[in-house]
Amino acid sequence: MNIGVIIGSTRPSRIGHQLTKWLLSIITVKHSLNLEMIDLAEWDLPLFNEPEIPAKGEQYYSSEKTRQWSRKIASKDGFIFITPQYNWGYPASLKNAVDYLYNEWSGKPAIIVSYANRGGGKAAAQFRQVLEGLKMRPVETMPAICLTKDMYTENGALKEIEDYKKFAAIYDGVINKAIDELQIELSSKR
Amino acid sequence: MNIGVIIGSTRPSRIGHQLTKWLLSIITVKHSLNLEMIDLAEWDLPLFNEPEIPAKGEQYYSSEKTRQWSRKIASKDGFIFITPQYNWGYPASLKNAVDYLYNEWSGKPAIIVSYANRGGGKAAAQFRQVLEGLKMRPVETMPAICLTKDMYTENGALKEIEDYKKFAAIYDGVINKAIDELQIELSSKR
Repeated sequence: MNIGVIIGSTRPSRIGHQLTKWLLSIITVKHSLNLEMIDLAEWDLPLFNEPEIPAKGEQYYSSEKTRQWSRKIASKDGFIFITPQYNWGYPASLKNAVDYLYNEWSGKPAIIVSYANRGGGKAAAQFRQVLEGLKMRPVETMPAICLTKDMYTENGALKEIEDYKKFAAIYDGVINKAIDELQIELSSKR
Repeated sequence: MNIGVIIGSTRPSRIGHQLTKWLLSIITVKHSLNLEMIDLAEWDLPLFNEPEIPAKGEQYYSSEKTRQWSRKIASKDGFIFITPQYNWGYPASLKNAVDYLYNEWSGKPAIIVSYANRGGGKAAAQFRQVLEGLKMRPVETMPAICLTKDMYTENGALKEIEDYKKFAAIYDGVINKAIDELQIELSSKR
């Protein structure tokens, strides 16, 4: 099964891409899962500018970039979304990427992983509702990573993964529980 | 009192700017309110790209556009947000504009007006939580406009306001109730 791991943050000083590498390192090898990182900063999608609503189908997409994004998402069987919390909600970068498409997401299972000082549960709950609006199937377990001083260097950058692995280990269980749920959902394709 | 009326949709085929004109025409003249339309499509803010978090203050803003946006929002005493609903949530364009700043919003009252086939109440509720995260004071009444066939021409464009005024009249009461609440909040500045 092909799983897209979508890094939802795009701002220059983000830590989402480092957290994502850590998350992938935690996941116990599941031989049936082929994980690919999809970095929204690299995709650099403009703010939604399609004239037609995405639910009408890909034949209405006006730009080559939208068609490329469509093919990338259509090629995956499920997703792991990694989202920061900004002002108790999801970031514009993530919502924008999701709103570009419709049928490409529909019916597919997903894990939502949030991160913030207190874990980002409010953003995760809002984003879950969005995925339900897209007719996706978010799994029950929603890992929420509480950022702590242990993860940062003295000048405020995120440490190398090796340097906070002991702290990070408390999330191994919940991440792998979510992965197990994802696999169950994948095997019961609708 | 200076009120910013923020048009949250930016896509080429949006109807938000027309709906906003209609809303403003409904509002019973309140001599103490000075309403200014703020069109996010005209502002054309890039996806959030400031290196520092906005709560640190305007002295950390890196671009002239962010500073202009900061001055515009700081100059207002309250806001009316007009938001469409995309996939049961708020659009990226609106969240992006809000996330650019922090102290400029803080403590100010706001009305949230949503629109969608069923009124957009889910997006409005999510956006209300975001405004609370920003320490704003959203008023209780949240007008939700159900888009109906009466509002559109045969080719799918929004009719001229005059042509659906009879239908629109059902929203006069709720809009002016929200405006009254906004005025009460404005007079009890925190």
